[in-house]
Amino acid sequence: MTIDEQLSYLRKGMAEIIREEELRERLVESAKTGRPLRVKAGFDPTAPDLHLGHTVLLRKMKHFQDLGHTVIFLIGDATGLIGDPTGRNLTRPPMTREAILENAETYKTQVFKILDREKTEIRFNSDWLIPMGYVELVKLASKYTVARLLERDDFSKRYKEGIPISVHELLYPLAQAYDSVALECDVEMGGTDQKFNLLVGREIQRDYGQAPQIVATTPLLEGLDGVNKMSKSLGNYIGIAEPPEVMFRKVMQISDDLMWRYYELLTDHSLAEIAALRAQAHPMEAKIALGKAIVADFHSEEEAGRAAEVFNSVVRRGEVPADMPEAPMTAGAATAAGLRVAKLLAGVGLAESVSEATRKIDAGAVEINGERVRELTIADPGGALVIRAGKNWRRVRP
Amino acid sequence: MTIDEQLSYLRKGMAEIIREEELRERLVESAKTGRPLRVKAGFDPTAPDLHLGHTVLLRKMKHFQDLGHTVIFLIGDATGLIGDPTGRNLTRPPMTREAILENAETYKTQVFKILDREKTEIRFNSDWLIPMGYVELVKLASKYTVARLLERDDFSKRYKEGIPISVHELLYPLAQAYDSVALECDVEMGGTDQKFNLLVGREIQRDYGQAPQIVATTPLLEGLDGVNKMSKSLGNYIGIAEPPEVMFRKVMQISDDLMWRYYELLTDHSLAEIAALRAQAHPMEAKIALGKAIVADFHSEEEAGRAAEVFNSVVRRGEVPADMPEAPMTAGAATAAGLRVAKLLAGVGLAESVSEATRKIDAGAVEINGERVRELTIADPGGALVIRAGKNWRRVRP
Repeated sequence: MTIDEQLSYLRKGMAEIIREEELRERLVESAKTGRPLRVKAGFDPTAPDLHLGHTVLLRKMKHFQDLGHTVIFLIGDATGLIGDPTGRNLTRPPMTREAILENAETYKTQVFKILDREKTEIRFNSDWLIPMGYVELVKLASKYTVARLLERDDFSKRYKEGIPISVHELLYPLAQAYDSVALECDVEMGGTDQKFNLLVGREIQRDYGQAPQIVATTPLLEGLDGVNKMSKSLGNYIGIAEPPEVMFRKVMQISDDLMWRYYELLTDHSLAEIAALRAQAHPMEAKIALGKAIVADFHSEEEAGRAAEVFNSVVRRGEVPADMPEAPMTAGAATAAGLRVAKLLAGVGLAESVSEATRKIDAGAVEINGERVRELTIADPGGALVIRAGKNWRRVRP
Repeated sequence: MTIDEQLSYLRKGMAEIIREEELRERLVESAKTGRPLRVKAGFDPTAPDLHLGHTVLLRKMKHFQDLGHTVIFLIGDATGLIGDPTGRNLTRPPMTREAILENAETYKTQVFKILDREKTEIRFNSDWLIPMGYVELVKLASKYTVARLLERDDFSKRYKEGIPISVHELLYPLAQAYDSVALECDVEMGGTDQKFNLLVGREIQRDYGQAPQIVATTPLLEGLDGVNKMSKSLGNYIGIAEPPEVMFRKVMQISDDLMWRYYELLTDHSLAEIAALRAQAHPMEAKIALGKAIVADFHSEEEAGRAAEVFNSVVRRGEVPADMPEAPMTAGAATAAGLRVAKLLAGVGLAESVSEATRKIDAGAVEINGERVRELTIADPGGALVIRAGKNWRRVRP
């Protein structure tokens, strides 16, 4: 690829590059010297359960790898090791190093579905932050003014509204900026909501005698509702560890507009390819193709095909409510001998008792993943289960 | 002394005690258990050259010692070891540990003129701050909000006026507060300008599970001009290491109003004694007595008497200008054989050349400390020299 083609490839699906001219210079320099660029993005150690919203960023990281560069998957565990230091937030106790390493493993199995393992460094910022002493930290804190940090959108709002900002919160953007110094980053990536913090990195690097990193932000992905940012807590997400049929069905429920947005941010298709598809394909076909592409990314082509079939046989009959209640797997229902369906139905509230559940099964009123249940114990289909008992539905989490 | 008498003794010359009721409780408890209170005041490691302004605080510390309590003379060297971390201020490079220890020695020789060596701990806050790591510092920083720190007078003013406040400046009041935790202080003292920082200590101690310290502030001493705070840079000071005759002369130049203020803040006289003196003594007598008392504090009764005599013989003749130019001792003028006056006169600009100086001495136009100079080499009187050559004057620093 020429430098222009590289830039165009990197620009697709990116919200902003500060500054593109500097990125061009580094790409030129890298081509000349053969030194890969170092491209960092930071991730929270407490939430290793990624959804498609996170993959927008991961995909752009991968695009740098496609061009031969090194990606640094930075786990911001220094903060996790402290927990909520104010002690006010009981839901954020300090994490143990074991828990963090375990989360890191979970991350790896997920992110390497997109990233190239060979061109990825997994790093932990506790490696340089925790040994940092008073002297170094005071020096770091001296590099930035309070006023400029308070300009950050959320700080500015809280400060004006009198909502307390603890002093340590001012230290976090500086610590994140110092990560770029420690890692000698050429590029830092993040969501548009990270722009301020990424820009702090540019200045701190300058202060430590390094060339300021290029800041590249990716848009925040809208969730399935097409309005709010995709998030776990809003429930409008597709998790990348979700089973194929769940992912596929969720894709099928989005609006056509949102589908084109997902094409741009969740596939490697070029803008030209997407435009062509938009001109030629029926929206339903395009949506099925998108669903398959997404499932294939995180499972396989084969499972993508099967998920499309399940959807066709079960869901497109129009019976499945979009907002069906979820329930966890009933303890004792999934056994080595198979899935004990009556126990499960009673456990997730689809029957008053095991005996009522048995009657429903005998009456042929129960389907799991679109298959009529004919026996009390069946082979466990695995993954999330979509269960119908008469007119009532449950999604059972594995 | 009864508890009421103790409180009254401590209250004299104090600007504010927060809270007096708590101080009473601790005095009662101390009397009961025999545990001395721990009374801290912090000092800057860069300026060990104390003047009378500093002694207001030292004297109140001594009053705690008079009641049997322990005084902690805290040298805030952690800051000194960092210097100006922004690197903008070339006049504040980091200090070496040797330089700090040397300054501490200088401090000791000065403060033990007032404080009781046996009831004083000399401590360095680098002992607990420098080993403090990222985790502890973030925890400390989490205990306080940005908004409350920005309420501090000088921060508030700078913030409003857009004068940069670096983030590390917010860490300093917290570090100072942490000193009280590390030292388990019962009382922290400081000038009224330190009130905010001292109050932060109360809250941080509470956060670390300690009873909040009592905050006791002393007034800022007006300098010789009676208007501005006494300070080195304004030149309106009396240094406690200055020679007797210089101290004495400086006291004699203050206004009568200021004299009574100095009586209150710079002597151990009770308010009743001062009132009696004011009613009975002639102001000039009272001022001479004050001058002698101050000289005696830092030198001896004997030297106080001699300083008064020198003043009488030299200065009260009305010839000495209050603002005479100062000059350092001329290199080579003070020899083992004595003071080579002609060389000195030429060196400090009181003569064009050594030969002109010799002519002036021969003509009897030269006085040192009020004594006519009759020989080219005289016994060095030591200390600062007040030299007259005709109508011109110099104060020569030793």
